[in-house]
Amino acid sequence: MYVIDSQLRSFVPVAEDSDFPLQNLPYGVFSQVGASEDHIGVAIGEQVLDLCELSRRGQFDLPELREGRPLERPILNDFMALGREAWEAVRRRTAELLSAENPTLRDNAELRSAALVRQADVSMRVPASIGDYTDFYSSREHATNVGTIIRGADNALQPNWLHLPVAYHGRASSIVIDGTDVTRPVGQKKPGDDGKPGFGPSAALDFELEMGFFIGPGSSLGEPVSVHSAEDHIFGLVLVNDWSARDIQTWEYVPLGPFLSKNFATSISPWVVTLDALEPFRTASPPQDPEPLPYLQGSSQSTFDIPLTVAIQGAGTSSGDIVCRSNFRYLYWSMAQQIAHHTITGCNLRPGDLLASGTISGPEKSARGSMLELTWRGAEPIKLSDGSQRKFLSDGDVVSLSGSCEAKGCRVGFGSVSGCVLPARA
Amino acid sequence: MYVIDSQLRSFVPVAEDSDFPLQNLPYGVFSQVGASEDHIGVAIGEQVLDLCELSRRGQFDLPELREGRPLERPILNDFMALGREAWEAVRRRTAELLSAENPTLRDNAELRSAALVRQADVSMRVPASIGDYTDFYSSREHATNVGTIIRGADNALQPNWLHLPVAYHGRASSIVIDGTDVTRPVGQKKPGDDGKPGFGPSAALDFELEMGFFIGPGSSLGEPVSVHSAEDHIFGLVLVNDWSARDIQTWEYVPLGPFLSKNFATSISPWVVTLDALEPFRTASPPQDPEPLPYLQGSSQSTFDIPLTVAIQGAGTSSGDIVCRSNFRYLYWSMAQQIAHHTITGCNLRPGDLLASGTISGPEKSARGSMLELTWRGAEPIKLSDGSQRKFLSDGDVVSLSGSCEAKGCRVGFGSVSGCVLPARA
Repeated sequence: MYVIDSQLRSFVPVAEDSDFPLQNLPYGVFSQVGASEDHIGVAIGEQVLDLCELSRRGQFDLPELREGRPLERPILNDFMALGREAWEAVRRRTAELLSAENPTLRDNAELRSAALVRQADVSMRVPASIGDYTDFYSSREHATNVGTIIRGADNALQPNWLHLPVAYHGRASSIVIDGTDVTRPVGQKKPGDDGKPGFGPSAALDFELEMGFFIGPGSSLGEPVSVHSAEDHIFGLVLVNDWSARDIQTWEYVPLGPFLSKNFATSISPWVVTLDALEPFRTASPPQDPEPLPYLQGSSQSTFDIPLTVAIQGAGTSSGDIVCRSNFRYLYWSMAQQIAHHTITGCNLRPGDLLASGTISGPEKSARGSMLELTWRGAEPIKLSDGSQRKFLSDGDVVSLSGSCEAKGCRVGFGSVSGCVLPARA
Repeated sequence: MYVIDSQLRSFVPVAEDSDFPLQNLPYGVFSQVGASEDHIGVAIGEQVLDLCELSRRGQFDLPELREGRPLERPILNDFMALGREAWEAVRRRTAELLSAENPTLRDNAELRSAALVRQADVSMRVPASIGDYTDFYSSREHATNVGTIIRGADNALQPNWLHLPVAYHGRASSIVIDGTDVTRPVGQKKPGDDGKPGFGPSAALDFELEMGFFIGPGSSLGEPVSVHSAEDHIFGLVLVNDWSARDIQTWEYVPLGPFLSKNFATSISPWVVTLDALEPFRTASPPQDPEPLPYLQGSSQSTFDIPLTVAIQGAGTSSGDIVCRSNFRYLYWSMAQQIAHHTITGCNLRPGDLLASGTISGPEKSARGSMLELTWRGAEPIKLSDGSQRKFLSDGDVVSLSGSCEAKGCRVGFGSVSGCVLPARA
C-alpha cells in the first residue's frame, strides 16, 4: 500500500477540481493521434504520462517488474498480473518522476516532451483484454426497487439475496470505452394481445450506474480466494454503464437471466483508479443482517466513499442534467465478498477480468441508479431542464457517469464515462 | 464447401471404426511430451498431422492463408478468423498430403517423421482463446423435462421458449480440455427448516450432454448476422460437458440465472470437426410451431445427424455404462438461429467464441442428457452394471461423452470428452 501524502505536488499543473492529482495516478491505455501503437499511461492533471515511453528509456528498470517489460505492452494485463508489490513500486516511481521536488522529468525538456501528452490529443482504449466479465447485483436498494416494481413491496427481495452476492456472467466482447456511441438495440419483446412476440427497436433503453474492478493476479481452477486476501486480487476500479433494454429483458430473462438485453454494449471509463489511491476514502459497508456464512465474513471496512452522478444531455441541448446522485458505499456486498463468492466453487479468475457491482442505488429517491427506478418503470417521467421528459432514454441522449472522492483537501476521481444513444438500425 | 469423396483413402492406417478417417480432418492444438510449443494439428486415424511443422516447411504456402502464418500459431483463432475460403484451401491441401495417391508425404520418411505424431504421445489443449462462451437451452425435450420437474407438466415450457433460443453467458475461464479432472464444487444451498442456507460440497453434481461450436469470422458491434449467412461464421463443433451442481443452482439462479453452479468447469473434446466434414450428415431440424419471427427463419436443413452417448464409469470398475443415447438433430433451435438471435441486438462475435447448445435430450427416456432428467431429480436412480446406483454423480466417476456420424460407408466422429469427479476440497 502506498498512499501519497496529500501535500505532495506535481510540477505538472493540476487544477483544484481535477480528478487526477498526484495522489491518484490512475492507469489507462491510450493512442496518440496518428500513432499505430497503444501505450500504457497514467493521468496527471490534463496530461498523460506515457509509461511505455519511459520504460523504453530505462526510467522504470524496477526489479519488481521482473522480465517481459509489462509497461511496454499495449494492454494492462501483464502488469495487472504482477500484484501489489509491482504496483506499489511503479506507483512510487511514477510519483517520484511527477513530483515537483524531483528534477529527472521536471528539468529535462526532451524527456518531458516525449513522455507527457495532452489528454485532449489521445484516444483511450479498453485498458485490458477482458477474459470474463461478471456483473453482480449488490445494491440492496436497487434489488428492492426492481423487485417492488415487478413483484410488489412484500416480496421485493428474492430469498437468496441477503445470503449471497447474486451475479451473472456478462458479455466481454461488447465492452466499450468512454465516448463510444451506443446503437439502440432491436429485439423481441413480450407478446401483445395477439399472442405474438413484439419485435423492433427497444422502447425502454436504460442506463445502469455501476462501478467495476479489474482482477490483478488470477486464481487457480479449484482454489477459492479467501475473503481476507481478496483485495490483493483487485487492480483498480472504473465506472461502468451497463446499458439495458428493459423491454427485451422482460421477455427473455426467465429462467436463465439477462442475455441480449445487456450484451449490445457496456461502457467503461478509461482510467483505472487503484486501491492505493482510494485508501484515504475507505469506509464501512452497510451492516449485514442476517450474518453471512463464514466464507463471506470479511473486514467491515471493505468499501470506499465514492460519490457518483449520472447526467443526461438531450440532443441539441448545451449541458446535461444530473438525474442521479449515488455513492459506491451504498453497496451491500463488498468487492472482497464478491471475489470470495465468485471463487467458492473453484471458479478461476484471470488478470484483466472485470467484475461489476450492479446498479448502485441509494436510500434516497435521487440516488436511484437507473431510469427503471427513477421513473418507476415510466410511471413518473423525469423532467430535464429543457422541458422535455423521459420515461427511458431518447435517441441523441448523451449519458455520462462521473465519480470522485474528496476528503481532507485530497481529491481522487474517475473522470467520466459517456455514451450517445444512436437511433436503431433501419 | 469441400466434401471429401468417401472412397478416398489415406496412406496413414485408419481403422474401420476410427472417428478420424480422411473424410473428417478435425483441427486441434497439441503438445508433444517434453515440447514447450503448442502446435495446430489434424487428427488422422491414431495419428496427428502437425500443420505447424508442415507450414514451417513450406507445405502450406497457400494464398488463402494471407500473411501471418496462422497455422504456426499456438491457438486456432487466427485461422478461424480467415473464413471458409481459407478453411477449404487448407482442407484440400491436408487431404492431398494425407492421400494414398500423393507421394509428397507418403514417400518422404524424414517429412513423415517430422509431421506425424501418435495421438497417444501428445497432450491436447483448449484449441482457441475463447473470448466469450454462450450456453443455449435449445432442446425442447430438455427444457420440457426440467420445467416439468420444477413446475409440473402444465407449465413446463416458459412462455418465451418457442419464440426464441433462450441462452445465458457462461464462464470462459473454466473451460477445460478432455481428460481434466473436475473437483466437486463447494457452495451455498437452499436453507433447511432453520432458515439458514446450507453450505458444503454439492450433493447433486451432474453432467450435461451438449455440443458447441467455435465462431470463425466475427461480426461487428451493432451489426446483426443474418440467419442465412450464419453458417459462414461456424468454424466447427466439439462435444461439451457442462458440469452442473443442481443444489447450488436451485438456490442461486433466481432471478439472474445460473452462475456458480456452472462455472467451476466446462469440458470440451479436443478435435474441432468442421461443417465440411459434417455436410454428408446434414438433415432437417424439428418443425417449428409457432413459426418464428422472420429474423429466425432459415433453412430447414440446418442441423446434422450426430448420434451421441454418455457413459459413466464408477471408481474401481473396468468399463463404463452407457446411460444416455441422444442425437444432435433433436435440438429445436439450429446453430444458424442461435447466431442470428445472439447478434440481433448488435452483440458482436469474435473468432474463437464458443456457443454451446444446452443439454441435448431426445424424445425417448434413454435420450435424456443429464442425471437430473435420467433420475427425475433422484426419484428414479439409475443402476450401473456393477450393481451400484446413482441419483447424481459420485466421487471417482468418469463421465465420457462421445459422438460420431455414420452414413453410406462414411464415418466422421468427435472422439470423446471425459472427466473424472474428484472429491471436494477438505
